[in-house]
Amino acid sequence: MTKLGKFHFVTESYLLDFRGRTTIPMIGNYLLHAASVHADSRGFGYSDMNERHTAWVLSRLAIEMNEFPAMSEEVVLYTWVEDVGRLFTNRCFELTNKEGKNFGYARSVWAAIDMETRRPTPLDVEGLSGYKMDRPCPVEKPGKIAPVENRTEGEIYRVKYSDLDVNGHLNSIKYMEHLLDLFDIELYREKEIRRFEIAYQSEGKYGMDLTLHAEEVSSGKYDMAICHEGKAICRAAVTWK
Amino acid sequence: MTKLGKFHFVTESYLLDFRGRTTIPMIGNYLLHAASVHADSRGFGYSDMNERHTAWVLSRLAIEMNEFPAMSEEVVLYTWVEDVGRLFTNRCFELTNKEGKNFGYARSVWAAIDMETRRPTPLDVEGLSGYKMDRPCPVEKPGKIAPVENRTEGEIYRVKYSDLDVNGHLNSIKYMEHLLDLFDIELYREKEIRRFEIAYQSEGKYGMDLTLHAEEVSSGKYDMAICHEGKAICRAAVTWK
Repeated sequence: MTKLGKFHFVTESYLLDFRGRTTIPMIGNYLLHAASVHADSRGFGYSDMNERHTAWVLSRLAIEMNEFPAMSEEVVLYTWVEDVGRLFTNRCFELTNKEGKNFGYARSVWAAIDMETRRPTPLDVEGLSGYKMDRPCPVEKPGKIAPVENRTEGEIYRVKYSDLDVNGHLNSIKYMEHLLDLFDIELYREKEIRRFEIAYQSEGKYGMDLTLHAEEVSSGKYDMAICHEGKAICRAAVTWK
Repeated sequence: MTKLGKFHFVTESYLLDFRGRTTIPMIGNYLLHAASVHADSRGFGYSDMNERHTAWVLSRLAIEMNEFPAMSEEVVLYTWVEDVGRLFTNRCFELTNKEGKNFGYARSVWAAIDMETRRPTPLDVEGLSGYKMDRPCPVEKPGKIAPVENRTEGEIYRVKYSDLDVNGHLNSIKYMEHLLDLFDIELYREKEIRRFEIAYQSEGKYGMDLTLHAEEVSSGKYDMAICHEGKAICRAAVTWK
């Protein structure tokens, strides 16, 4: 079995934004779905992890887009394991059109947790390393994200049914969606998101009151956070071009 | 070309709810996507309508589910034109598993609007009727939905970026999502939605302040509405079993 995963999808009109383009959360959804199917077919999927009383947890995700797929566009998504450490593994992604023209890249960082303790557990480094491959993934390494929650008031949001994933926690994609809703529509009209980066810190739960924060730290660059009772459950950074 | 459209999809883990099942909005998304591709391949798609300065508008949708597809389940979706009138056409759907076991049915009602005036415009009855077919669609006809906005206070919601569709209006699927978020999580734990019905009345726009209303009118049966400045922009009815 080849180490490189290759997936195809066609953008769906009902999932595009008002500009007729794919959104960052929808791209995130395609990436996570491909990651899950790819891991599954290599013996490291949801049910394999489950048998060992462990589960994958997405720790970080950085997406860099040159161009956003438009209506009914065919997208080819490649995914591969870049690196495996004791507690974290990196998975990369490339998105292209069907002629091979690049749309963008992404890098994700995953940990495995013990399902009882919910604490990180060592990875099967040997097993996973068999799938490692060298392939360029020109996504800038994550930088420091300032704790903007102390400097901005934040918008209040309560976690709802539609926010929950199969584990009953705030869906990884919904963190993105709620953060991106903080930007004024004018920004979407005039600019594009060049880079979106998120670091997940703890789990949002049903009914939790959250505050959503954003601050422009330099021209077009925003640091963001989602907090619960003043403590960040995730940090994010967005660069507009 | 056969009159019956046949589509396949596999449920994606990141789009399932906390019970590991497909949601009504996600089923709605599959239906609308299939409708759009099916119409397109028969010469009545988005771009065909656009050339005539018209656009399809979803007027009503009723979904009746016996069972909700679960994780990584393959779903076969059939769609066909049931009826064509001067101003409205009915499109039906059946969802089955890959062995043909029925999950549920749906019926949608569509109008065409003139893109300048945003008013309903007569359908090409002759052209569309060529695709009409007889196939059972045992979905109960829409009933009267009481105006619950006068009897309930309603929850406030402001339309955001992630709510907008390609026309810059509140996405048809997001009406469903926001309404279904009104139900307490306990209801989702104990029961299933047997029938979901929605009637779209006018377009939600960015930044609009909406109120979301729900009232239990008989055991397990709820009438719902989304209003803007006291006027309903949609009504819905949900039956739990």
